[in-house]
Amino acid sequence: MRPSGRNLGEMRSVSIETGVTKHAEGSCMIRIGDTHVLCTATIEDRVPPFIKGSGLGWVTAEYGMLPRSTTSRMRREASAGKQGGRTVEIQRLIGRSLRAGVDRVALGERQITIDCDVIQADGGTRCASITGGWVALKLAVQKLMKAGEVISDPLTDPVAAVSCGIYAGQPVLDLDYPEDSEAGVDGNFIMTGSKRLIEVQMSAEGSTYSRDQMNQLLDLAEAGVAQLVAAQLAAVNA
Amino acid sequence: MRPSGRNLGEMRSVSIETGVTKHAEGSCMIRIGDTHVLCTATIEDRVPPFIKGSGLGWVTAEYGMLPRSTTSRMRREASAGKQGGRTVEIQRLIGRSLRAGVDRVALGERQITIDCDVIQADGGTRCASITGGWVALKLAVQKLMKAGEVISDPLTDPVAAVSCGIYAGQPVLDLDYPEDSEAGVDGNFIMTGSKRLIEVQMSAEGSTYSRDQMNQLLDLAEAGVAQLVAAQLAAVNA
Amino acid sequence: MRPSGRNLGEMRSVSIETGVTKHAEGSCMIRIGDTHVLCTATIEDRVPPFIKGSGLGWVTAEYGMLPRSTTSRMRREASAGKQGGRTVEIQRLIGRSLRAGVDRVALGERQITIDCDVIQADGGTRCASITGGWVALKLAVQKLMKAGEVISDPLTDPVAAVSCGIYAGQPVLDLDYPEDSEAGVDGNFIMTGSKRLIEVQMSAEGSTYSRDQMNQLLDLAEAGVAQLVAAQLAAVNA
Amino acid sequence: MRPSGRNLGEMRSVSIETGVTKHAEGSCMIRIGDTHVLCTATIEDRVPPFIKGSGLGWVTAEYGMLPRSTTSRMRREASAGKQGGRTVEIQRLIGRSLRAGVDRVALGERQITIDCDVIQADGGTRCASITGGWVALKLAVQKLMKAGEVISDPLTDPVAAVSCGIYAGQPVLDLDYPEDSEAGVDGNFIMTGSKRLIEVQMSAEGSTYSRDQMNQLLDLAEAGVAQLVAAQLAAVNA
Amino acid sequence: MRPSGRNLGEMRSVSIETGVTKHAEGSCMIRIGDTHVLCTATIEDRVPPFIKGSGLGWVTAEYGMLPRSTTSRMRREASAGKQGGRTVEIQRLIGRSLRAGVDRVALGERQITIDCDVIQADGGTRCASITGGWVALKLAVQKLMKAGEVISDPLTDPVAAVSCGIYAGQPVLDLDYPEDSEAGVDGNFIMTGSKRLIEVQMSAEGSTYSRDQMNQLLDLAEAGVAQLVAAQLAAVNA
Amino acid sequence: MRPSGRNLGEMRSVSIETGVTKHAEGSCMIRIGDTHVLCTATIEDRVPPFIKGSGLGWVTAEYGMLPRSTTSRMRREASAGKQGGRTVEIQRLIGRSLRAGVDRVALGERQITIDCDVIQADGGTRCASITGGWVALKLAVQKLMKAGEVISDPLTDPVAAVSCGIYAGQPVLDLDYPEDSEAGVDGNFIMTGSKRLIEVQMSAEGSTYSRDQMNQLLDLAEAGVAQLVAAQLAAVNA
Repeated sequence: MRPSGRNLGEMRSVSIETGVTKHAEGSCMIRIGDTHVLCTATIEDRVPPFIKGSGLGWVTAEYGMLPRSTTSRMRREASAGKQGGRTVEIQRLIGRSLRAGVDRVALGERQITIDCDVIQADGGTRCASITGGWVALKLAVQKLMKAGEVISDPLTDPVAAVSCGIYAGQPVLDLDYPEDSEAGVDGNFIMTGSKRLIEVQMSAEGSTYSRDQMNQLLDLAEAGVAQLVAAQLAAVNA
Repeated sequence: MRPSGRNLGEMRSVSIETGVTKHAEGSCMIRIGDTHVLCTATIEDRVPPFIKGSGLGWVTAEYGMLPRSTTSRMRREASAGKQGGRTVEIQRLIGRSLRAGVDRVALGERQITIDCDVIQADGGTRCASITGGWVALKLAVQKLMKAGEVISDPLTDPVAAVSCGIYAGQPVLDLDYPEDSEAGVDGNFIMTGSKRLIEVQMSAEGSTYSRDQMNQLLDLAEAGVAQLVAAQLAAVNA
Repeated sequence: MRPSGRNLGEMRSVSIETGVTKHAEGSCMIRIGDTHVLCTATIEDRVPPFIKGSGLGWVTAEYGMLPRSTTSRMRREASAGKQGGRTVEIQRLIGRSLRAGVDRVALGERQITIDCDVIQADGGTRCASITGGWVALKLAVQKLMKAGEVISDPLTDPVAAVSCGIYAGQPVLDLDYPEDSEAGVDGNFIMTGSKRLIEVQMSAEGSTYSRDQMNQLLDLAEAGVAQLVAAQLAAVNA
Repeated sequence: MRPSGRNLGEMRSVSIETGVTKHAEGSCMIRIGDTHVLCTATIEDRVPPFIKGSGLGWVTAEYGMLPRSTTSRMRREASAGKQGGRTVEIQRLIGRSLRAGVDRVALGERQITIDCDVIQADGGTRCASITGGWVALKLAVQKLMKAGEVISDPLTDPVAAVSCGIYAGQPVLDLDYPEDSEAGVDGNFIMTGSKRLIEVQMSAEGSTYSRDQMNQLLDLAEAGVAQLVAAQLAAVNA
Repeated sequence: MRPSGRNLGEMRSVSIETGVTKHAEGSCMIRIGDTHVLCTATIEDRVPPFIKGSGLGWVTAEYGMLPRSTTSRMRREASAGKQGGRTVEIQRLIGRSLRAGVDRVALGERQITIDCDVIQADGGTRCASITGGWVALKLAVQKLMKAGEVISDPLTDPVAAVSCGIYAGQPVLDLDYPEDSEAGVDGNFIMTGSKRLIEVQMSAEGSTYSRDQMNQLLDLAEAGVAQLVAAQLAAVNA
Repeated sequence: MRPSGRNLGEMRSVSIETGVTKHAEGSCMIRIGDTHVLCTATIEDRVPPFIKGSGLGWVTAEYGMLPRSTTSRMRREASAGKQGGRTVEIQRLIGRSLRAGVDRVALGERQITIDCDVIQADGGTRCASITGGWVALKLAVQKLMKAGEVISDPLTDPVAAVSCGIYAGQPVLDLDYPEDSEAGVDGNFIMTGSKRLIEVQMSAEGSTYSRDQMNQLLDLAEAGVAQLVAAQLAAVNA
């Protein structure tokens, strides 16, 4: 019934390849089916002005899509002269989600910037960015710990994200693009490895939903996130 | 225990004054405690290119804050040369939420733009914008119906929004600014008069939350939205 | 003969309501007929670089129109990505006019920013902004004097503005929008309570005028400003 | 008593050299003392959308300063990414002033754009731009008339401009930069060859002025404009 | 003597992997040592206005660097609000170079856009972009020919590019980043498979060079381009 | 055979008039046939951040075209809101070329900015800008030396530039606009008075060229630059 032939609660294949660029302090290419996102982590000693001198760390994120990551070519945002509303919204979400899983005291007064660049898109790029972004972040932190610059691990519980939606009247896990463009209700669920919630964004376009439906999607999301967390841990411990 | 002395499940005072500007097809000033938002509706015969000729209507929204609506003056976005990320995110949310409650076939091929301008801010401006925005939208549609340009009411179920959060360890309804800036977890809940959900955005800043806590906030939100809907109906039927 | 039925030398009704927003150091809503402008004053301890260390104060202004303050909706300047030429010209005029009435030594090295936001427009918004802006400025200065931060009053002579024009061949006072859009010659006259001139901007669109006509408009303006000053003084002494 | 040694009512030397660039339909270099402005006129067959099909012509203007036209180098506006407020205000004034002297019916449905680029600045650049701009405009119109595209002369009365101010307590004609930067009161007076007024902009910075003083400046301006008009007529009839 | 231990006339390893993204009409990842560039080709039926109706085709290019493709993170151009001067210069060069090798009549009235996005940078990104860009272009054209939309091959002679420079007093082929940042003289040489020149850009920073030195670099470049062309042909014929 | 009737190796008339604006530390108007460029030099005591404290000087350049310097009016870049790609490319070239001829130690830690503004264009504006720019630079340096602020001359070898191309199958020197717009191959050759090369940019549009052809153009360029250098020396020693 799903265009891809998957079961309602079945994720696409997940792969996380680490160490994909030589300059970044942490990097991975995350592939969720045909959605491929390159995530890099950059460590800097400066922090934003509003926490200068506080001893706290900061994690922020930027998001971009290559012009031909999509079915038809998108205009390059650098050439358009600004980041679109969708881009800004997504990169704020990525940064907020990753920060929720960081012990900013343990991180110390430094900033880590996560860049998530979509190489190929097939739905779920923001969730893949968060999931892959956490891996890049973890690898950068491991490097700081190995160097003795951070003593206590600020990242004890992984952060991962998955989208679910109501497609053809049924709750389904991990929407791909054909499903995403049809689903009247969908949500992004950001959770930790210990099943705590970080962010839920569940919206209807031209439609509404009940609390029961919301709970069905949350159940699916919990199962999906568990698989993603397993892939994250495998990647960072490799 | 709340800075304002309110009970955990107590809303601030709600008032919706309609007909506040002479040019707009629909308008209201919504006041949720010290948060005051001017909402206007503009009807235009054109629609965005992607639905031209479809016979469907469109509802969109823009959001702004007057520079001194806040405790300290914010830079004027027109002078900064662009709308910030928060503004873009909020106006996309308002548009999406209001569209979910519209029968776009019944509306017919026209666009209604809702402008939400914050005159004074004390937390919850996006929820007030949605709630007041629906009133302005409804008034504009009533004008179209009175003129016979729309036959069947495209707005049968009101759309309203409220924020809830966990403040000092307790779930509280309708966060004001002092609560909002302290709450580690908060959410915006957009619902219809018939208690259907349109959008849930619940996030943690530097923290996480459980599904139980999420359900407590949803319960509070249902009660709050019911009060808001009563105020909306009183305003549009006045 | 005037569309509103007013006499040639008759102003529209004038009302100035103070204390309309809780955050600003000074604020008022000025209503000149159907033109309504919200004026707020913000005190800051910093001054522009070019007077740093001089001991002199600074007054500046910004101006904006809500998108639906006008008959048909205007594009929001923040979304257009810049302030239009008219906006820039007007806010420079407001700042310059208010500064002319300030003893900058007495004010001391601080900046007061006047924001003038047009809630509803019916002609004469720049004049209403200057007149209301002076009230917001005066209220902010009164607060500084009450707190002992300013000793000698830097605002001893009110600043107010009115537009006059030649409509249907006759000199008329206080143009409303229907008159303004027809008048071939109009001017903005900024004056003090003691009838000193601060700025005269009198221009013809597709036409010219004589010195006699200029003097007729100046006579009308003097009478109009006297009424506005009375309203200002009533407002700030209330 | 004036830094230049001129008498109170004495203009700087005026020269208008025509035909200075080979591409423009009309061009001149106007030199008012050390203020040198290159003015060109471009004829185009299109008009702005709001007069399309009306049969009326349009005249508009743009203004710029070369980066090192001034004592210390100014930032190039193209590199700053926008025209500053002063630039926008000046080019609107130039366009408005020139249009006031045009019979737009006689011009026919075409647009003439006047570019005024300041090569060297020593005060009074906007007045020089208007005066030189009229010459460029006239030359372009002569070309249209010679070609039979315009039958009846749309420019029967020259438009010229001069600044006057109160310097060291005395009314003076044609302010140069040292005077302009000291004068507490100054004005720009745009007039026709037949002494009709087109625009008066007279403002005080940190000061005020009386109607008597205004009349003294108007008297000086009338005399100055008469000299400028003579130079214009000599240039276009050469 | 070279930091990498290469001989003076030795290229880095070259690999071109085709078909790397599923949406683009042509794509490859080109790797010249540690410089990795993703090149995609997008076919569109529209052409730029200036050749509309001419029957001629158009090829254009855009270039970007991922923020962390470099040793230290670069600011994202989309967030900076514009493409920097270096980016604009490079993408103009890529487009111009590829166009020189296209029979625009044979291509027919369509546009192919080549996007070159640097995933990892180690010197020579513009040359790698041209070389890889030709491969993506060729693959897209092959698709058009297979579909019968293009009959005669518009790409009969490959276009490739290599940089050479004078490093430590010696002419060297294919500069990597450590060499590029030290070389006082370097050049980019764009040539065809048949050794015709398309573009030579040879410049000195704080230095000069003789015609003899120029000829030495041209000799090296010819040899380097021959190797690149072999790799291109292997890739497109695979 | 050339549209102008010139011989293949014949330059247009060259004139360099110095001291053309009173504010700049160095200035000239260079006229190469109908191409007229105003070049000014501005000395500033600050240098760019990346060389602060190094004791080295810096030379940079900006380039602009007046809107009506061309056959049909170009849009003013300040009003378009950004410098186009061509402008950025040219001004980077001018700065790079002039820097190559400067002893930056002898110049000392100061910046000289060369502004090149095209008053009238007829092909070869970038070459004229470099040639005239060197004169303005030299004049500014002479002023520093006369004042004893620079002891040893940092400009011992002039820098000049000329374009050559293949027009109607023949190599020609100093392309004017009619030739430039037809030539399939053209180049800009920047050289010193002692015939050292600084930059060669030779490109083909829709065509290719051989090394023989390149050498023919280099021979022409050497002869042309020699004439330009003679004019430069005459101008600065006048």
